[in-house]
Amino acid sequence: MYPELVTDALFSTDRLERARKAAADAGLDALIVTPGADLRYLTGYDALPLERLTCLVLPVQGEAVLIAPQLEVPAAQVSPAGSLGIEIAGWAETQNPYAFAAARLPRGLGAVGVDNHMWAEKLMGFRDALPGVRQELAGPVLGGLRMRKTPEEVEALRRAGDAIDRVHSRMGEWLRAGRTEREVARDIADAILAEGHDRVDFVIVASGPNGASPHAEASERVIERGEPVVVDIGGTMPDGYCSDSTRNYVLGDPPAEYAAYHAVLLLAQRAQTEAVRPGITAEQLDAIGRDIITEAGYGEYFVHRTGHGIGLETHEEPYIVSGSARPLEPGMAFSVEPGIYLPGRHGARIEDICVCTQDGGIRLNLTSRELGVLS
Amino acid sequence: MYPELVTDALFSTDRLERARKAAADAGLDALIVTPGADLRYLTGYDALPLERLTCLVLPVQGEAVLIAPQLEVPAAQVSPAGSLGIEIAGWAETQNPYAFAAARLPRGLGAVGVDNHMWAEKLMGFRDALPGVRQELAGPVLGGLRMRKTPEEVEALRRAGDAIDRVHSRMGEWLRAGRTEREVARDIADAILAEGHDRVDFVIVASGPNGASPHAEASERVIERGEPVVVDIGGTMPDGYCSDSTRNYVLGDPPAEYAAYHAVLLLAQRAQTEAVRPGITAEQLDAIGRDIITEAGYGEYFVHRTGHGIGLETHEEPYIVSGSARPLEPGMAFSVEPGIYLPGRHGARIEDICVCTQDGGIRLNLTSRELGVLS
Repeated sequence: MYPELVTDALFSTDRLERARKAAADAGLDALIVTPGADLRYLTGYDALPLERLTCLVLPVQGEAVLIAPQLEVPAAQVSPAGSLGIEIAGWAETQNPYAFAAARLPRGLGAVGVDNHMWAEKLMGFRDALPGVRQELAGPVLGGLRMRKTPEEVEALRRAGDAIDRVHSRMGEWLRAGRTEREVARDIADAILAEGHDRVDFVIVASGPNGASPHAEASERVIERGEPVVVDIGGTMPDGYCSDSTRNYVLGDPPAEYAAYHAVLLLAQRAQTEAVRPGITAEQLDAIGRDIITEAGYGEYFVHRTGHGIGLETHEEPYIVSGSARPLEPGMAFSVEPGIYLPGRHGARIEDICVCTQDGGIRLNLTSRELGVLS
Repeated sequence: MYPELVTDALFSTDRLERARKAAADAGLDALIVTPGADLRYLTGYDALPLERLTCLVLPVQGEAVLIAPQLEVPAAQVSPAGSLGIEIAGWAETQNPYAFAAARLPRGLGAVGVDNHMWAEKLMGFRDALPGVRQELAGPVLGGLRMRKTPEEVEALRRAGDAIDRVHSRMGEWLRAGRTEREVARDIADAILAEGHDRVDFVIVASGPNGASPHAEASERVIERGEPVVVDIGGTMPDGYCSDSTRNYVLGDPPAEYAAYHAVLLLAQRAQTEAVRPGITAEQLDAIGRDIITEAGYGEYFVHRTGHGIGLETHEEPYIVSGSARPLEPGMAFSVEPGIYLPGRHGARIEDICVCTQDGGIRLNLTSRELGVLS
């Protein structure tokens, strides 16, 4: 179900030990982690978030146990979690799963950390089952681990980047005048899978005025010649790591103003990707692009932050945003994606995934960043 | 982006009014609803759950407002939410979105209801922004509304059922000896989209011993002649309503024991679908199938509940489970899916979506429930 590589190199008991230590350092007595990227990071188990409770219970002192509904136990066992040497305990359909999980925690707990995406109903279920125990977000603990990628994780992100680059390099096959955004998006989604992803996460094909909405959905709008098109696509690889890259295209000649501000954007994005190095802060990196765009007169049209971390989720720490004094460190992976959006007219965004290394930044997306002129 | 029908018949301000009234009846002063099925139910806005806060703020007394990050405002406006006549308020990248949202609530609140799937980080963000305000789950309020489908919603589920039936009726095109589960699953996923769904939610193709795990993932296992295969598939239609249907297939002749217990399962599932009527309780409906299976000697192998409600989510209220004394009512829609699983050997599950009406139950999945013998 998972390639050997994944089980061996990516999901190791080492992660559980580091999480335990980080939790203890943060003053937490245990972590409770429900399905999502945190659970996959810690155990390799890619469980769906459902109404039935599944969670990793990880006391700082004591044995880890993976709690699952009885009918999910076989799926958990064949996942990488089955090879971690931790117990997988199934609860029966008519049991109270929160009491079942709470019974696996040491007595006298002061504080537990819960994953940031735990559903309110689960959080309240644990509140009732663990009266008097303080609930805190495990985000600072687990985000701190997930944010600093190992060399194996960087290689996984590189494979994801290569896969999405192959899709962008084939754009001329699908992006043609007279087709709707939705038709083009459907073909791109097929290619995202064909090029090695396990799942399509998003396909933005935003033509003409739709390009001025950073998160436009592909619509029934017919794409015309001479209209700029923002294509922002990403998916999840079989090992769970994500891709995300944006390029801008035009069928035939672009409007002159568009060519002008796309060139400004490219200068800004280049300057930012070249500035990546240990020690530069997130807000400094954001400002490098924002200053160039502002100086060219487009500052008010760059309406979002520069980027987001990426790994087992498309959006995770570190965020490259004004107001964040976080210094970049080797192993951090994130998008650099400044944009310029002219309401009612068109927009542009250039996005690469970058990794901070000891020697500076490396880009994981390598297709041309110039405006893609298609015939 | 959405067909006319959807905006007009499915998403109406009527839902906001009914939610307000139900919240008041439950002693809540306001609802706060983040992206997910609850938000889509109330506003038609199919927003992705992301780190940036998006939420509907719905005070029992006062104006509703949809809070969104500035860059998502255009997407919210073109969604059905844009036609509801409620304000859409955007917060800027460097603002505190919880304080921004809290400022839109009346002063002196006692209790707010939050959607059951609200992320822990959002819940805690609101805890800080609304000190002294009690947080409760909005599930009982919103689940109560969503559980009772309008005729238009039943029609939407019928269209979803027809679409997934068309996929099952084409199974012989893909399910052949010598192919892997994953290859078959990929083709089925394509067909789920081709037959009218907007999204593939799950594709279980569980052959031989894998069929004994109710939630097995499609694997690299090669399917052999004579092996039973459980195929459980579903997707989401463009209007947001979901499909879910399970059938069992075999290539050539089945093992005799399998044919025997599949026949028992079919009796049980038929008896259950025919017993659907207003007033019967969830646990009574569960027991009807369980008793038949137990009497035939397979009781210990029916390891899960009979079914789950379905609508804008594949799993929602009402759950058809032992211990639930909830009486069924007209408009309730749910799966009836008993199963028998022989560990290490094979398994079977038969699943239809049923709707309770004044006159009894109707099934929305109409392909043959017999074991599907393919050549």
